[in-house]
Amino acid sequence: MPDTEMILIKETYLNSDPGSGNMIILKEEPNAKRYFMMFVGDAEFAAIAKEKGLVDPQRPLTHDLYLRILEKLSVNFIRVEVHDVKENTFFANVVFTAEGKEHVVDSRPSDAVALALSRKIPILVNEKLFHRELSQEEMQEFEGLVKSVKF
Amino acid sequence: MPDTEMILIKETYLNSDPGSGNMIILKEEPNAKRYFMMFVGDAEFAAIAKEKGLVDPQRPLTHDLYLRILEKLSVNFIRVEVHDVKENTFFANVVFTAEGKEHVVDSRPSDAVALALSRKIPILVNEKLFHRELSQEEMQEFEGLVKSVKF
Repeated sequence: MPDTEMILIKETYLNSDPGSGNMIILKEEPNAKRYFMMFVGDAEFAAIAKEKGLVDPQRPLTHDLYLRILEKLSVNFIRVEVHDVKENTFFANVVFTAEGKEHVVDSRPSDAVALALSRKIPILVNEKLFHRELSQEEMQEFEGLVKSVKF
Repeated sequence: MPDTEMILIKETYLNSDPGSGNMIILKEEPNAKRYFMMFVGDAEFAAIAKEKGLVDPQRPLTHDLYLRILEKLSVNFIRVEVHDVKENTFFANVVFTAEGKEHVVDSRPSDAVALALSRKIPILVNEKLFHRELSQEEMQEFEGLVKSVKF
């Protein structure tokens, strides 16, 4: 039995900044104080931004290619889970069924989130990976961050 | 009927250089003078380098995630085709069968090449996209390029 709870994510925020890089912030609800944050590469950031309708790349991204292939196949995506962290690297699973069997595949969280947004399946994050409630000062900084997001 | 021939690729070369970027060069055989060249992003370059055994990323790349998902499904990848260029952008197709039907999905050539190397399926390039035979001077430069590749 896991001794931590998996939290259902309702909000995905993006922020890109030349100094700090590409950031994805996940929250259980807009007003929630705790949050999950990860840094991602350019291609993964683009994939998530595209799924949120923030950019419209002219050519299919890697995700798009495979999602178009998967559309032709019998597969049901169930959920993605960001479940652990080791040496500052987050770990996620993609859960799906095919031919009556459930499969769990290891994934980077950025790919899992892009896939989940595309297929409209739940994103769950282990509560132990959330940042604690922010102080007043941190909150101001975080609010600035959220306001700087382009949507 | 197409009025150009599709050339079967036997050799894939990679070169990365801070000035010119990430380059993929495809040739029908090592001694062939004509060649196909494209510039690709970091993530796509990493995927191709990984499929050639040049790098071993600790975490699954986007390609790896989807290829692991596809391993659980009934799909046969047949070939990839780099078939056209428009406004300096190359276009490719991925051809596969699923449930007895053949499908053709639009792809960036870099994704198509990474998929083909992974699944060991033919890479075909329209001969009109090849660079012509090189001059002696160009050949020297090109030889330097090929020698600088890490394998």
